Amino acid sequence: MQDVQETAAWGDVEPEAAQRLLTAGVEAFAERGYHATTTRDIAGRAGMSPAALYIHFRTKEDLLFRISRVGHERARGIIAAAAESEGAAGERLARAVRAFARWHAEHHTTARVVQYELAALGEEHYAEIVALRRDIDRLLRGIIEDGVRDGEFAVADVPGTALAVLSLCVDVARWFSAAGSRSPDELGELYAGLVGRMVAAPGGRDAGSSSQK
Amino acid sequence: MQDVQETAAWGDVEPEAAQRLLTAGVEAFAERGYHATTTRDIAGRAGMSPAALYIHFRTKEDLLFRISRVGHERARGIIAAAAESEGAAGERLARAVRAFARWHAEHHTTARVVQYELAALGEEHYAEIVALRRDIDRLLRGIIEDGVRDGEFAVADVPGTALAVLSLCVDVARWFSAAGSRSPDELGELYAGLVGRMVAAPGGRDAGSSSQK
Repeated sequence: MQDVQETAAWGDVEPEAAQRLLTAGVEAFAERGYHATTTRDIAGRAGMSPAALYIHFRTKEDLLFRISRVGHERARGIIAAAAESEGAAGERLARAVRAFARWHAEHHTTARVVQYELAALGEEHYAEIVALRRDIDRLLRGIIEDGVRDGEFAVADVPGTALAVLSLCVDVARWFSAAGSRSPDELGELYAGLVGRMVAAPGGRDAGSSSQK
Repeated sequence: MQDVQETAAWGDVEPEAAQRLLTAGVEAFAERGYHATTTRDIAGRAGMSPAALYIHFRTKEDLLFRISRVGHERARGIIAAAAESEGAAGERLARAVRAFARWHAEHHTTARVVQYELAALGEEHYAEIVALRRDIDRLLRGIIEDGVRDGEFAVADVPGTALAVLSLCVDVARWFSAAGSRSPDELGELYAGLVGRMVAAPGGRDAGSSSQK
């Protein structure tokens, strides 16, 4: 069950046939798991022959890797844009959390495949994905470190807190349903407020206020 | 890759052959996914014949359901014990988060199967698990509502905050590794502190102090 936004995740992958295969791969892996899915299943969903799939992807693992890489690159792009934006650390952290949580709500099917099938990647592909994950982690840690240095945040364990913030947003993909009571935007707002409280220095201007609006 | 504690999750399931099959089921589902696993695979891992499996579980789905039910009952037991314990809401919430996060670290393989294979459950079994999940949610919301009523917490969106707290702890199962830098106990402490800040009333005795120790 993919919603319209999920397809848009592959909007800049070329050619269009590769996009269709990535979408079909996400759907098939999400429904039955990577190991229970064949390249024939994926090609069939995309309305193509198995031979046509091999023009774009060498193996099923290669297709999973491309899904994972696009997903992780989007995630890094979101966190990088927030980290490099203007404003105090609190504003940049709120931007990062708002956009990262929203992305995991909108693209929950893709995000599930990306997160739960990591162990199926080959060694080299896995190493490439791990490098992207370290980047994402480093960018978010940087925002928190800025806030601590400026006295806006009080955080004793920066790596642990950064991990918790990312984990909170990623897990949205597990439970989010488009039929639920919160839109991706509302969820992003809620989470930005909760994370703001997690890091705010006592008595700081944002302390405790974010979710009281 | 299960660690010793994971096996202990089935310690009170009888007879011992059923325990072995549940452990084998968790391992097989975690490695290959539910749909790519056969009852023959599971029986083989447990050193038993496929016929012997059917003495204890009617179908592969029945075995998944038993894994899921035991997992959810443990989770509910943890949150219920904290909810019914002595002390202010802040102390009870810290106990709940500490134990819930620690459980998801110690039993990460089981928790992954329980959380990621829900869609494979049959309709009646799924309904039974959803009832357990609602109980867990209600118990945690109750602690937060107590804290708001007593003025210890300031939380505008109690259901959304309860969902975020549970989600934060559940996602530990996704990324936790016994080889990582934090023990389950250390992680439980970190998370109890972060959640305490998420809910504390401004100027309350716990506001902002929990992760400053």
